[in-house]
Amino acid sequence: MSLDQFPRGVLVPALTPFHPDLTVDDGRFVDHCRWLLAEGANGLAVFGTTSEANSLSAAERMSLLERLIEHGVPPGVLMPGTGCCALPDTVALTRHAVERGCFGVLLLPPFYYKGVSDDGIFATIAEVIQRVGDARLRIYLYHIPPMAGVGFSLSLIDRLLKAYPRIVVGLKDSSGDWKNTHALLEAFPGFEVLPGSETHLLDALRIGGAGCISATANVNAAAIARLMREWRSPDADAMQQEITAVRAAVQKYPMVAANKAILAQLLDAPEWDILRPPLRPLPTEAKAQLFASLEALHFGLDHRVPAA
Amino acid sequence: MSLDQFPRGVLVPALTPFHPDLTVDDGRFVDHCRWLLAEGANGLAVFGTTSEANSLSAAERMSLLERLIEHGVPPGVLMPGTGCCALPDTVALTRHAVERGCFGVLLLPPFYYKGVSDDGIFATIAEVIQRVGDARLRIYLYHIPPMAGVGFSLSLIDRLLKAYPRIVVGLKDSSGDWKNTHALLEAFPGFEVLPGSETHLLDALRIGGAGCISATANVNAAAIARLMREWRSPDADAMQQEITAVRAAVQKYPMVAANKAILAQLLDAPEWDILRPPLRPLPTEAKAQLFASLEALHFGLDHRVPAA
Repeated sequence: MSLDQFPRGVLVPALTPFHPDLTVDDGRFVDHCRWLLAEGANGLAVFGTTSEANSLSAAERMSLLERLIEHGVPPGVLMPGTGCCALPDTVALTRHAVERGCFGVLLLPPFYYKGVSDDGIFATIAEVIQRVGDARLRIYLYHIPPMAGVGFSLSLIDRLLKAYPRIVVGLKDSSGDWKNTHALLEAFPGFEVLPGSETHLLDALRIGGAGCISATANVNAAAIARLMREWRSPDADAMQQEITAVRAAVQKYPMVAANKAILAQLLDAPEWDILRPPLRPLPTEAKAQLFASLEALHFGLDHRVPAA
Repeated sequence: MSLDQFPRGVLVPALTPFHPDLTVDDGRFVDHCRWLLAEGANGLAVFGTTSEANSLSAAERMSLLERLIEHGVPPGVLMPGTGCCALPDTVALTRHAVERGCFGVLLLPPFYYKGVSDDGIFATIAEVIQRVGDARLRIYLYHIPPMAGVGFSLSLIDRLLKAYPRIVVGLKDSSGDWKNTHALLEAFPGFEVLPGSETHLLDALRIGGAGCISATANVNAAAIARLMREWRSPDADAMQQEITAVRAAVQKYPMVAANKAILAQLLDAPEWDILRPPLRPLPTEAKAQLFASLEALHFGLDHRVPAA
């Protein structure tokens, strides 16, 4: 298990399980991450949007990362999210990830202040790089304007690549806009562009994309990973259609809640259905609708008990 | 100096000064806060948007609050911002503020996840109240959708007031929409509504508003505080016009940068012009324009050296 190959593959923004008192369920998290790798995921983009990472304190994230590594998840497959609003938090999390041997970090821009300049975002990344001061640092920019309200423009990316060509190496594009992904792939050959959904996995791979980082890989890792392995095969388009259909069914609902509901059902583990506020579990009726639409796609909800 | 009267008055979201290495300049912060109170401010809403609080770690905020109190700023005039994305951070900061005797906290909703339900925001506030578990807690909701992307609807406020009538006591309205402030004042008599600008201070006071919390009070506290004291006098409208004109001149520019530029000029202290990324200082030309427009309003930029 290593991510030094290219294309990089399918990375999962692993869901974070909670106990009923809303503390993190470390053990269940480790099990989930190991299962995702066993299913064929190439890496884990832990502490992303789907992971409710922004509902975790910096200390919780660091402790959880250490638990993963202690329990045998190789740091070489880990790309933790480390971008916070406050520079000291971002620096602390990024340094910690690099020191623990993670192959990269997924960096949100500081997202409280809106309408900030490219110059301000550039200055943030520059400060992080300088303060971490470690040649092993590999930054993947996390472009998710619908959630962060702040993003990475093409001209800003160009400036970052010129200033830090060996450090700023990729980007997760969760703009939801294939035109943007396409423009990035055209503009920056060799830059590792990872769409934030499997819907465009094949499209991206065919023009030099690096893989994808997708929320629904939490529940459909095996099928997405299979397309990743076999994307040059004649069946690739059919495989893409199948995973796209599952994605479409899930993304009708709030993503974190829907994925946790599915996992709770798959594993017969109602604890998976706990979210930290402000996120809430799916209402019972929405769950029934979601499960029905997945059954209609022959996405078996009763049989996928993971290897322990 | 106490805020147990009503209306509550002018609160200043005190700017946070930084050293050139971007660490917080505690001494300058204490001096600034003491000066604001000496100028007539009724209280300090430290760690707000204007304070770049979202660019500070939780540990930095707690340490800074302690410094203020150690240096003689009475906790009874303090309403620190304590709302973060992550519940554990919000609980830690809120508990700390209550234990230190602050009269209230200004609570942002968790602001990373967008499109969250009122139910999710209610659950967050309920968790904070339960976990802090202190009858002294007084929460002022911080409604600033242009920045946070998440806000407090009238029906959510109604629900919070019914559930926690002695704890949820007020709201800072930084919607920038006077219609919303007006609707809040009409809907919830006795609820302490504080517009997020002095532009509507007089309008608000005349229909039961509690005062205001304004960024520009960092540089114009004396004039705003004077209107607060004399709002029933025949000169009140003229005073309102004057402070509105200053506000209008400043808010043509990014607020934090403009206020810091003015303070640097007023105090001949270039260090005030340091912002943490992603925010940036005003460009030289914009500063010159801003200063010229203030001079045109007879806002003396050379003479207001504060009492030490």
